Amino acid sequence: MSARRRPLDGIRVLELAQVVAGPFCGTLMAEFGAEVIKTELPGRGDDLRRLGPVEDGTSYWFAVDNRNKKLMTLDLHRPGGQDVVKRLVPHCDVVLENFRPGVLEKWGLGWDALHAINPRLVMARITAFGQTGPLRDGPGYAAIGSAFGGTWYINGPADRPPARPTPVYPDYMTGLFTAFGVMAALRHRDATGEGQWIDASLYESAFRVMEYTTTLYGRQGVVRERGGLQHAGWPGGAFQTQDDHWIVFTAPAQHLFERLCTMLGHPELPRDPRFASGRERPQHIGVILEIAQGWFAARTFDKAVEELRAADIPHSPIMSMADIFRDPHYRARQMIVDVPAEGLGSLPQPGVIPKLSLTPGRVDHAGAALGRHTDEILSGLLGLSADEIARLRSDGIV
Amino acid sequence: MSARRRPLDGIRVLELAQVVAGPFCGTLMAEFGAEVIKTELPGRGDDLRRLGPVEDGTSYWFAVDNRNKKLMTLDLHRPGGQDVVKRLVPHCDVVLENFRPGVLEKWGLGWDALHAINPRLVMARITAFGQTGPLRDGPGYAAIGSAFGGTWYINGPADRPPARPTPVYPDYMTGLFTAFGVMAALRHRDATGEGQWIDASLYESAFRVMEYTTTLYGRQGVVRERGGLQHAGWPGGAFQTQDDHWIVFTAPAQHLFERLCTMLGHPELPRDPRFASGRERPQHIGVILEIAQGWFAARTFDKAVEELRAADIPHSPIMSMADIFRDPHYRARQMIVDVPAEGLGSLPQPGVIPKLSLTPGRVDHAGAALGRHTDEILSGLLGLSADEIARLRSDGIV
Repeated sequence: MSARRRPLDGIRVLELAQVVAGPFCGTLMAEFGAEVIKTELPGRGDDLRRLGPVEDGTSYWFAVDNRNKKLMTLDLHRPGGQDVVKRLVPHCDVVLENFRPGVLEKWGLGWDALHAINPRLVMARITAFGQTGPLRDGPGYAAIGSAFGGTWYINGPADRPPARPTPVYPDYMTGLFTAFGVMAALRHRDATGEGQWIDASLYESAFRVMEYTTTLYGRQGVVRERGGLQHAGWPGGAFQTQDDHWIVFTAPAQHLFERLCTMLGHPELPRDPRFASGRERPQHIGVILEIAQGWFAARTFDKAVEELRAADIPHSPIMSMADIFRDPHYRARQMIVDVPAEGLGSLPQPGVIPKLSLTPGRVDHAGAALGRHTDEILSGLLGLSADEIARLRSDGIV
Repeated sequence: MSARRRPLDGIRVLELAQVVAGPFCGTLMAEFGAEVIKTELPGRGDDLRRLGPVEDGTSYWFAVDNRNKKLMTLDLHRPGGQDVVKRLVPHCDVVLENFRPGVLEKWGLGWDALHAINPRLVMARITAFGQTGPLRDGPGYAAIGSAFGGTWYINGPADRPPARPTPVYPDYMTGLFTAFGVMAALRHRDATGEGQWIDASLYESAFRVMEYTTTLYGRQGVVRERGGLQHAGWPGGAFQTQDDHWIVFTAPAQHLFERLCTMLGHPELPRDPRFASGRERPQHIGVILEIAQGWFAARTFDKAVEELRAADIPHSPIMSMADIFRDPHYRARQMIVDVPAEGLGSLPQPGVIPKLSLTPGRVDHAGAALGRHTDEILSGLLGLSADEIARLRSDGIV
């Protein structure tokens, strides 16, 4: 553990969140120095502890998206638990939560209540549908965000039903939008002393990143369908080599298109009226794709990569996790790190991004056991005695 | 235009970037108050101006992911253009760039040079593969990030080749990771006066959000394949109703699983040893999915939604853009906004997210014509005379 300064040193976050979007936001902040205290229901904990592969009681997914946190148990349904939150809030800069709208209010922990306790507080609220609007009470996870946000509809082959977008993009994107919003709100707070709250939703993160799709429908009434390249104006996609590997290339700029056509043995195509500009190209994209299919089918993987590299066309193999683990670039970038994990020694996880030159983030430990830091927080931060802690525990509050 | 304070007021960003990741990062900051000056090559401009649907010379995609910016032309290849950058940098807090590693160095605009001019500078550098490692010089766009980062491999139906992830997630996610990194670096700068640079890459954004996939391979040697639910431990997916609509549901927690089984007419399943816990459930997930298929096939869309709502199971129709435009929740949340756009009146675009209660972001105008604000920046910020500007223009520098 390095003693080096990190940019969020001194920021304390109280995380009342589970599954992915909120926890990922908390971990991102914790990697860059924030002290993140996460509460979980006694005896049960975050649902993510039971999702995906589990080894000796540790969910790999919980372990990666809750790293660097202090984990305490707390029953928010009960007045004793709510009281602990109210005692923690004056010590915190940020509260991060993902209950459905109204739940924290019912417990006396809504924005008005917490803001009254700590006027400098930033409160980030993540839900599936946002804090307002007719669907605000609807439950949801990333899949619901993708479906309602429009990204599921355009995913997968054109002749198949829409395919589930994987991984859970709306969760991670909402975590990122929220982390940016929190940083912006902290900046305003530092300048003025004023706290505020943030309304982030899974479906809006999906909808925001739909490229030109909203404008295309709004201006021209054209619904974007699956298939990927029909409006794109550039050739690209996945192609199978002679020896059954998959390679992706893309050529979204004029100079790349020209080099691509030369590489494919058709240097005349850029002057063909069907391909003269981005306006005509999409309608005839099939011609290029068919030529490319033949080109890849006639070459081994090694040969195809050699020619793509020589032509300086953007390309990559479609990497499975097995490919990734043996890749020298991942190794040189230290993108797979061994993270200390209670009971398991260590777990391989992705490294911290983005990489900051002077105050880089770091990973200290994976998401730990339920209640691992309960006593530390209650005694250290709140100054509770051993007796008081024992009473909270025997009452089932922590 | 509201005069209301925004959290990034007073921050000036010089954007030397094009296509999506860098420009989206710039626009996100501009929505929250940063003054973002974007440079584009005279006579050509950002390649995004020629990608996707174009109306009267305006690319819808450029318009949405370059909104709120000041746009100037500048030829960075030429000493005169490089000189203008060096004169702008002392006035800027952030430089955002996405050239391949070494290109800015070749032009005398690398980190060492810019940091010497402005020691408080934050420089965010976005590339496909990062600033180091054997592949650092490789060109790339989102498709390459998805393929190399591992997300393309797991996308699409199990019995088909990997399907192109759409929209261009690595671009947007890298823009978000970078925006977070910039905010963190600005926080450190405000505290210490020290600038620094940020290394962000498209493929690492994809790789970071792979859920439990890295750990699953590293610990157990299991390569995650397409198909979506084989390790998930919970039922869900897209199902077709009697009247041919698609609905997604998901039930990733025990209480949801129990309610789901009851709704499907099989309240006994949660006590069946095949479904007792997240450990066994994935292996028998097909049983539940088949029951669900039959259940949806026997119901109209309206009836299915009514029952899902009554059971409080997370669900959503798979929304096309046409569905989104007529949806009352989108309307109530003001998620589709009419954005002033030069020459076209206005363009429908997604609203600003996340929603901040006290200092919300806002959209002032869509991405405008090439060089729209060149004179304003050269005269206003750098104090150049009309003659000097005319000379730069006749020399083709701007």
